Amino acid sequence: MKEFQLIEHFFAKQAQSRRDVELGIGDDCALVTPALNKSIAISCDTLVENVHFYPDIPPKALGYKSLAVNLSDLASMGAEPAWMTLALTLPEVDEQWLTSYSAGLFEAAEYYNIALVGGDTTLGPRSITITVNGQVQAGTGLTRSGARIGDWIYVTGTLGDSALGLDLIRGNRASSPEDADFLINRHYYPTPRVLAGQALRTLASSAIDLSDGLLSDIQHLLKQSGIGATIDVDLLPLSASLKNSVTEEEALSYALTGGEDYELLFSVPEAQKGALEIALANTGVSFAQIGQISTGDKLKLLRDGQPYTPINIGFEHFS
Amino acid sequence: MKEFQLIEHFFAKQAQSRRDVELGIGDDCALVTPALNKSIAISCDTLVENVHFYPDIPPKALGYKSLAVNLSDLASMGAEPAWMTLALTLPEVDEQWLTSYSAGLFEAAEYYNIALVGGDTTLGPRSITITVNGQVQAGTGLTRSGARIGDWIYVTGTLGDSALGLDLIRGNRASSPEDADFLINRHYYPTPRVLAGQALRTLASSAIDLSDGLLSDIQHLLKQSGIGATIDVDLLPLSASLKNSVTEEEALSYALTGGEDYELLFSVPEAQKGALEIALANTGVSFAQIGQISTGDKLKLLRDGQPYTPINIGFEHFS
Repeated sequence: MKEFQLIEHFFAKQAQSRRDVELGIGDDCALVTPALNKSIAISCDTLVENVHFYPDIPPKALGYKSLAVNLSDLASMGAEPAWMTLALTLPEVDEQWLTSYSAGLFEAAEYYNIALVGGDTTLGPRSITITVNGQVQAGTGLTRSGARIGDWIYVTGTLGDSALGLDLIRGNRASSPEDADFLINRHYYPTPRVLAGQALRTLASSAIDLSDGLLSDIQHLLKQSGIGATIDVDLLPLSASLKNSVTEEEALSYALTGGEDYELLFSVPEAQKGALEIALANTGVSFAQIGQISTGDKLKLLRDGQPYTPINIGFEHFS
Repeated sequence: MKEFQLIEHFFAKQAQSRRDVELGIGDDCALVTPALNKSIAISCDTLVENVHFYPDIPPKALGYKSLAVNLSDLASMGAEPAWMTLALTLPEVDEQWLTSYSAGLFEAAEYYNIALVGGDTTLGPRSITITVNGQVQAGTGLTRSGARIGDWIYVTGTLGDSALGLDLIRGNRASSPEDADFLINRHYYPTPRVLAGQALRTLASSAIDLSDGLLSDIQHLLKQSGIGATIDVDLLPLSASLKNSVTEEEALSYALTGGEDYELLFSVPEAQKGALEIALANTGVSFAQIGQISTGDKLKLLRDGQPYTPINIGFEHFS
């Protein structure tokens, strides 16, 4: 187990520094100083080998992605990343694997200014649990429950790329090298919409990040807000690479049901629409209005004004 | 995976409520409100089946213990427990197991007033990662690095009981039924010294919790404080059950090298000795002075004033 203690030292050396970290890795606890009048947003995600990722994932991508999926939860609350712990369970001590994994992890940590303040490294079947802490002005955290009838529904980025990327990796589909590069990169290196999430605070009425696929995730938002919605599938933002690689019908299925996009889906009252579009444009993130909150508790999909059902494309996915 | 989402609902229903939890389980993040002028203590521990516990551990004990070992880290910083996340990886959904596990977890959570605010439940080889947050008056957190030459060394409770308890469970040793009950209980239900830890703040100069065994854990404290120490093994607090069950030499070995006692070891300057003994007595926790911080960087064990080496008893332990 000595080797495992060395791993903690290895991570401690690379940990992002922040002025609000009084005491970092190496004692019984870390000590951090929260900012005045901020709430702390807390989220935790586990990735298990063969359940959430395949053994052939590049360790650098796994390092980046294991943090990115957690940052995406902070983004959907409008919180600013601050501190995290890493629980890493590994079947063996493999220096090369650790070097790559940590390079990916710290690339995301540095970019999003989140400090690794603690963790635990243990022997066992490979799995990763990261718990992130963010800060958000008290009373302004974005939840899933604030959507109201008439609010407009938006998403950031483009949808379906990650799911098609995974299908390309598994050899279930083929694409041009350029499109494959883009799509696989979206699967391995999703972009948590941290800045966009902060721009949405006080303007959006609700938000959620898209991890399981739009059709699945929007249900949580509708249920917790107690409302229904209509989505116009003609308005779904699709990347050129997705459209180049599959049929139009398939592209819509990827966009509606493909997982792991880690884009934000959010609702905006009519009165905030203009302010929100300006605020979001300033973050440089692309976004699209795709529908509207409605009465009832059902989700309706429309295409050319007619009810729409996506085709079943039976793609690979993790759940 | 629907079943796994139901598990989160199952835990959410039982979660301890606290007034500083604005938003609990069920959104992308929890939101909590830190108290004014407090630092946040953060710690994280993973328990993996067959590495940190055997499959035959009663699930209720596992639930209790998986939180208790984390609370022990908060205790050794003098922090007050506040919020936690639970990442539970399970090979199957077993309702009876979950009921018992959660009963043990929430027994500890309610007693120590810590709220479960988030988590993740995933399919995979059984393992548990809990991340705890505590609060401590800014600038008063107890670390491992503050021990100074001449400070007195103390421990809470009695030592070695948990390791002998594990040997009894594994059938490596035998004992009277009453003693076995006590010792096995100490292994399954260790007591995190949360109140004692808070009483030590501003009085003790350093503290650590005993998870790997006194001889191993004190080295971290000596190294981080840059000092040496002398322990008088005649002063080690031993339970009647430990003394009844093994020889005197064996008892000393359990006390010095047995793991998982989760007692606090701490150093106290001469000037604070009286105040500390009063403060600790008020918490109802037993404690014993066992040695003194000295020059150099070595740990010396003395018995009747002579150098002492514990016998090797080759007991079971997790590392």
